[in-house]
Amino acid sequence: MNISMYQASVPRFVNILGNLSGILDKAQAHIDAKKIDASALPTYRLYPDMLPMTKQVQIACDTAKGAAARLAGVEIPVFEDDEKTFADLKARIAKTIAFLQTIKPAQVDGSDDKDIVLKRGDKETHYKGMQFLLGHAVPNFYFHVTATYLILRHNGVEVGKRDFLGNP
Amino acid sequence: MNISMYQASVPRFVNILGNLSGILDKAQAHIDAKKIDASALPTYRLYPDMLPMTKQVQIACDTAKGAAARLAGVEIPVFEDDEKTFADLKARIAKTIAFLQTIKPAQVDGSDDKDIVLKRGDKETHYKGMQFLLGHAVPNFYFHVTATYLILRHNGVEVGKRDFLGNP
Repeated sequence: MNISMYQASVPRFVNILGNLSGILDKAQAHIDAKKIDASALPTYRLYPDMLPMTKQVQIACDTAKGAAARLAGVEIPVFEDDEKTFADLKARIAKTIAFLQTIKPAQVDGSDDKDIVLKRGDKETHYKGMQFLLGHAVPNFYFHVTATYLILRHNGVEVGKRDFLGNP
Repeated sequence: MNISMYQASVPRFVNILGNLSGILDKAQAHIDAKKIDASALPTYRLYPDMLPMTKQVQIACDTAKGAAARLAGVEIPVFEDDEKTFADLKARIAKTIAFLQTIKPAQVDGSDDKDIVLKRGDKETHYKGMQFLLGHAVPNFYFHVTATYLILRHNGVEVGKRDFLGNP
């Protein structure tokens, strides 16, 4: 049997976003124990011209909800990008998971050949559904979840690969 | 139409490993221009108890070749873990891509329900093929490619998301 477009997208995003939420719990426990300022880690960047941790979580969520909504042909929910604390970021993840859970397999399945257009400023990139999911959305999603994890790890939060992978 | 197990694995690994090789070219150009010791970046860790950059590349390669070989039911090629320079790491990536390109779609397709057992020390983890690929191998692969990228980015190598995503 083959993999459906739904199987390769929504449940995978939901699973890893849940793991990311657990990682943020460990980060919260870490800053509570060490009395670290609540803004220190969310604003941390691995290099001055990179995006801060907050933005990594926002983009991970946006990639997941954008991919699922585009493949399903429904409107992409818009969230304010105003998160400042781990609690705010966990709420964004929870909203993203809640949206993903409204998407039914039948809405996404069969979208492998669907035309998907991403706009960034003046530039349009055209994909077919499967290419968009496997070649753009999935790597981009994992990139930003991993970046979040590594920013925390780099700052001494005790998380491990098991927190990232969770139970597949 | 659905996604085949082959489409979700081999060509995706090959594509991103090619991008990773290009990222290492930029890292090489960076250390040449700045006269940085050849061992500095390959041995760099984002935290003292994390794995160094060399190991991130090795594991990315091992995850890709291990997943493809397990799903196809062929022997996993063993590489010595003796890489020290970017050139060595690029050679490992090239060997990995060459192996992946020997795998034919028919060898991997239909492996979604195949029993896969991963052994780590005494512990065995049991998966079905699709769960192993989508829930373990793919996230693990992207984790280590992203970690390599971020170690380089954190150290001032001028790479961008486009280098990571390439042309899907």
